[in-house]
Amino acid sequence: MKALVYRGPGRRELAERPRPTIQYPTDAVVRIVKTTICGTDLHILKGDVPTVAPERILGHEGVGVVEETGEAVTAFKSGDRVLISCISSCGKCVNCRRGMYSHCAQGGWILGNTIDGTQAEYVRIPFADTSLYQIPDALPDDPFVMLSDIFPTGYECGVLNGKVAPGSTVAIVGAGPIGLATLLTAQFYSPAEIILVDLDENRLKVAKQFGATRVVNSSSGKAVEAVLQLTGGRGVDVAIEAVGIPATFELCQFIVAAGGVIANIGVHGKSAELHLERLWAQNITLTTRLVDTVTTPLLMKTVESGRLPAAQLITHRFQIDDIMKAYDTFAEASKNRTLKVIIENSGGR
Amino acid sequence: MKALVYRGPGRRELAERPRPTIQYPTDAVVRIVKTTICGTDLHILKGDVPTVAPERILGHEGVGVVEETGEAVTAFKSGDRVLISCISSCGKCVNCRRGMYSHCAQGGWILGNTIDGTQAEYVRIPFADTSLYQIPDALPDDPFVMLSDIFPTGYECGVLNGKVAPGSTVAIVGAGPIGLATLLTAQFYSPAEIILVDLDENRLKVAKQFGATRVVNSSSGKAVEAVLQLTGGRGVDVAIEAVGIPATFELCQFIVAAGGVIANIGVHGKSAELHLERLWAQNITLTTRLVDTVTTPLLMKTVESGRLPAAQLITHRFQIDDIMKAYDTFAEASKNRTLKVIIENSGGR
Amino acid sequence: MKALVYRGPGRRELAERPRPTIQYPTDAVVRIVKTTICGTDLHILKGDVPTVAPERILGHEGVGVVEETGEAVTAFKSGDRVLISCISSCGKCVNCRRGMYSHCAQGGWILGNTIDGTQAEYVRIPFADTSLYQIPDALPDDPFVMLSDIFPTGYECGVLNGKVAPGSTVAIVGAGPIGLATLLTAQFYSPAEIILVDLDENRLKVAKQFGATRVVNSSSGKAVEAVLQLTGGRGVDVAIEAVGIPATFELCQFIVAAGGVIANIGVHGKSAELHLERLWAQNITLTTRLVDTVTTPLLMKTVESGRLPAAQLITHRFQIDDIMKAYDTFAEASKNRTLKVIIENSGGR
Amino acid sequence: MKALVYRGPGRRELAERPRPTIQYPTDAVVRIVKTTICGTDLHILKGDVPTVAPERILGHEGVGVVEETGEAVTAFKSGDRVLISCISSCGKCVNCRRGMYSHCAQGGWILGNTIDGTQAEYVRIPFADTSLYQIPDALPDDPFVMLSDIFPTGYECGVLNGKVAPGSTVAIVGAGPIGLATLLTAQFYSPAEIILVDLDENRLKVAKQFGATRVVNSSSGKAVEAVLQLTGGRGVDVAIEAVGIPATFELCQFIVAAGGVIANIGVHGKSAELHLERLWAQNITLTTRLVDTVTTPLLMKTVESGRLPAAQLITHRFQIDDIMKAYDTFAEASKNRTLKVIIENSGGR
Repeated sequence: MKALVYRGPGRRELAERPRPTIQYPTDAVVRIVKTTICGTDLHILKGDVPTVAPERILGHEGVGVVEETGEAVTAFKSGDRVLISCISSCGKCVNCRRGMYSHCAQGGWILGNTIDGTQAEYVRIPFADTSLYQIPDALPDDPFVMLSDIFPTGYECGVLNGKVAPGSTVAIVGAGPIGLATLLTAQFYSPAEIILVDLDENRLKVAKQFGATRVVNSSSGKAVEAVLQLTGGRGVDVAIEAVGIPATFELCQFIVAAGGVIANIGVHGKSAELHLERLWAQNITLTTRLVDTVTTPLLMKTVESGRLPAAQLITHRFQIDDIMKAYDTFAEASKNRTLKVIIENSGGR
Repeated sequence: MKALVYRGPGRRELAERPRPTIQYPTDAVVRIVKTTICGTDLHILKGDVPTVAPERILGHEGVGVVEETGEAVTAFKSGDRVLISCISSCGKCVNCRRGMYSHCAQGGWILGNTIDGTQAEYVRIPFADTSLYQIPDALPDDPFVMLSDIFPTGYECGVLNGKVAPGSTVAIVGAGPIGLATLLTAQFYSPAEIILVDLDENRLKVAKQFGATRVVNSSSGKAVEAVLQLTGGRGVDVAIEAVGIPATFELCQFIVAAGGVIANIGVHGKSAELHLERLWAQNITLTTRLVDTVTTPLLMKTVESGRLPAAQLITHRFQIDDIMKAYDTFAEASKNRTLKVIIENSGGR
Repeated sequence: MKALVYRGPGRRELAERPRPTIQYPTDAVVRIVKTTICGTDLHILKGDVPTVAPERILGHEGVGVVEETGEAVTAFKSGDRVLISCISSCGKCVNCRRGMYSHCAQGGWILGNTIDGTQAEYVRIPFADTSLYQIPDALPDDPFVMLSDIFPTGYECGVLNGKVAPGSTVAIVGAGPIGLATLLTAQFYSPAEIILVDLDENRLKVAKQFGATRVVNSSSGKAVEAVLQLTGGRGVDVAIEAVGIPATFELCQFIVAAGGVIANIGVHGKSAELHLERLWAQNITLTTRLVDTVTTPLLMKTVESGRLPAAQLITHRFQIDDIMKAYDTFAEASKNRTLKVIIENSGGR
Repeated sequence: MKALVYRGPGRRELAERPRPTIQYPTDAVVRIVKTTICGTDLHILKGDVPTVAPERILGHEGVGVVEETGEAVTAFKSGDRVLISCISSCGKCVNCRRGMYSHCAQGGWILGNTIDGTQAEYVRIPFADTSLYQIPDALPDDPFVMLSDIFPTGYECGVLNGKVAPGSTVAIVGAGPIGLATLLTAQFYSPAEIILVDLDENRLKVAKQFGATRVVNSSSGKAVEAVLQLTGGRGVDVAIEAVGIPATFELCQFIVAAGGVIANIGVHGKSAELHLERLWAQNITLTTRLVDTVTTPLLMKTVESGRLPAAQLITHRFQIDDIMKAYDTFAEASKNRTLKVIIENSGGR
């Protein structure tokens, strides 16, 4: 089968690989219909993720059709149309039983990381019963591809951890795909204000279309002042970090109001300065989280009921044969105005 | 009247001052029966707290008897025996109405800070109806002096923010008075393990008497390893910082388990390094808080019902005339094995 | 001044009364600009509310302008435009400090009940600082009249107590003004389905316009079956009772799913049967509540930010001189398709 | 093997039965070391539980040793010493994933109900990985037998649902084994008062030994007055129903304070009157729950750390050959002062 393979730092290739097979009774093999590329895949390609060995098939998102199931799989059968969660969950360990699937003793983020992933024609899914979700017949594929990772990430790490609530004032720092997914799901709770902060004017324009009530272009270096002015000097109830660098994390610390929350989504490569000399008395809550995908069923309901326009994030489409080009398009996001790309194998809806 | 006065950095004096009077209809004047000294008072004396001007009477803790009340005070009358909260709360502003009295628009921590405090024979208490608490007749003064600041601080900033729960594993870094108050109130929730970490062997011994299940002397520089070993390599569910320096805050980051909480109590004078490169994926919650004293009524009930031996923290007693000596004793805590000192005016119980 | 006076069961009159004056330092006198009539006022007129004595001026809702304030009032001054809360809160007692203003030791629901109310040209407001809310200059009166009682009631007793959440399935039994206010505020949380149940086809039509995803006319006697069918036999996550009679409370018990919530809003005159023989094992939560109006500031923000079209409930308008006719119109709601009426004194916006 | 078999209403017998075998890959067969009898078993014998067919082996509690496992079982192996949960949980269905194991799509309470149970020498356990718990080597069997059902029931349905908290006032109505398990676990949260109400003077005496701060003998018919007097007329914050009849449920409604919780544990055979005419405005929360055993790991930790003296409930011991006599002793609890009985097979610790 065709697969996008990591060859070591800076090198990727569309290669031919053998089709995966059932290895454990709890496995399923899924034929991929549509997949996508994540910012994390770009990090892997830079060599920043040491758990990913060369020759790994990348990808941890996608929608497909179950091809085959191990004998202990009871919730799915051949032919079922499924959403693949970016997090594999055994359903049995202490962390799975407390809803922290991201730290599953045997699973967690393993697809396209420690085992082969979804940017291929087929993928083996461990713990299929608790890592796949049945897609309703009547609905198209696209929004569910967006529910493999990016929407649960924005919703769990940003909106839920941030305790966004009716009437609250929210700032989202970073208007990339994750920031925009956060923006869309933050609106589930009817906050009074959602301020988007980014350097890219096009992304801020998209943010306004997606429901931001205010936008701040931080290229001026005066984002703190701008946010404080928009909030009458008080700061925001919720500051969501959706970039992953010290500067944006720093910004969050200076715009959050007393009693507020800083919810980190960004994948950080280095430490940041925490201004405890100021924050110790500010009654702040700061959260970090690797997405657990515990809200996938809930998010599927919001798609079904028409309350989450998840497919809005999709800007470009490719066939699997053009996946190298898809990566180029995604990597140069600003130039191409890319948000999320779809890579199709065949026969999607 | 006699009063302990701040004369500028490094200088304090027992001076004669005029007795305070009612200035606003919501004020009360309270005759102090017993007061105490807080670690914050030592910070003030070092000149570290710029809001405190010279000539200020220090002190924000104490028990007394109402002498006089303004005409809008309805909950107290002359002769009532009261606990003075370290936090003044107007009861009307947005923050008071959401239970964040520490950030009261007109109050907060003002006693012995921006207005004269309790280390005197009399004190003026603003917003008396919502900043004083009636002490039951049958009960002694001592435990209630401990409830002005130190117990709500340990309980709110450490135990509640830390989400200590039955069966959980807790580490408290710092076995000074605040750490010990945290230790005593953490036991309200029956955690499985409470590990105390400190450099002072005497304080660790006291911690064991007060209910610590394990102690770690961090002078070896191997506290992280020791705590991990005590927890089977997993780390703790709750790490409570009760010192206020970068080293102890750093320690907390390396002993907290995935999904755990770091609850900061310490008053920090500088920033600290936050290891987001490791913590971003660890599902951590980190909290800061200036005590709100919103749990004072609850803590009073636990004292009344015999479940909180608050007076255990008292190691030394002085008369107001000897308050300079009380400060010396408190400042050299390690040498004197001091936890909390009581300073009496007269006629306490 | 003109005032609507209760003369005993079945009797009301537009009478002339002396203008109220300040009685306590915490009072304000407010000139009423707009008021409205509540279903509770009709209960009073039937003689069902024994705390209301003859000669009482009715009304507990309204918007006005502060005329005069007692000397302990600090948050308001003459000329301020204010929303009057249906619940008076002293801000000091145990219940006020825990956010349960409805059971304030000296306040609670007293306006138009144990003291004179708002259906007049002026009203005396006790505990003004904590019972009035400043209305932003730029905004009209109408939505804020709706925020005195009906919206906090629907939101607190129905939506918050019911734990309405993104993706959840909600049934609201009763599509009168309270049920519709619940419907509008339930949408703050983006539930997947909101099913309205009522006997009146016109109200169900309005419910659909206001955002109900499904409606069930219960006149058939088959509402249970209809709701179960709409939910795949599973029942609803949240059943909100907004009528106040045994039959509708019974209905809620048979449509709630295991693990769900029954949130009672209705004012009940008699007991109901609770089917513990079935519910004991169903992991149900059942809540009751007299509105606390603790969410008034939050609701004001949702009005300001354009997320709560509160004035939609207003169907009829009268001058104070025609208040007797306003009562007739409100009492015969079905015939007149009345939801809420506005009664104006003068000069509103 | 020997087994206690239900023969139809009023009839039980110690019979010989074939040893169970693995039927599904997720099964385990467990050799029973110790089991016990539940009040529910007595209900079954009265013919009150229609799901239990004649010839069923009863029992849903116990500790044993794994004899054999199906091929999909990964967390246990032959020889493991295990606690058997009274609730079987598949770990995969919607309800298991939200922590409501009691309503597991394929499990829930099935042992000794719809499949053969634990009052035998061996038992087949479905979904072994998520329905058994490893017992630490060093610890005795007895407390863990008590953790199969009675302690999670008291803790989850009574203490957690009741929101028992430090300083709160709790009434537990019913001092049988469930009420006493509730009493012991309520103390995890250091409430100020725990009032036990029962008709049996011996059980009230035991309650005092187990930590009740007050007891009320309800045989006088004046329990409401007595509880109100003990609480200064205010009533209790938490009223826990641990009997299951209308009279005790009625009592709870009259002793709960405004803003309080009624947590039902009792298994009710008929409906009860709910006094909505009084409670509608009292801000009450009422909960029901079939135990989920989601807190079993937490309770095991409290046993391990010495904070839960679970074995205190055991008053009598029998060998399996005398199980008929064990039933007699348990059924005549008042006469025999029975709380819980242990039935041993052999070789327990």
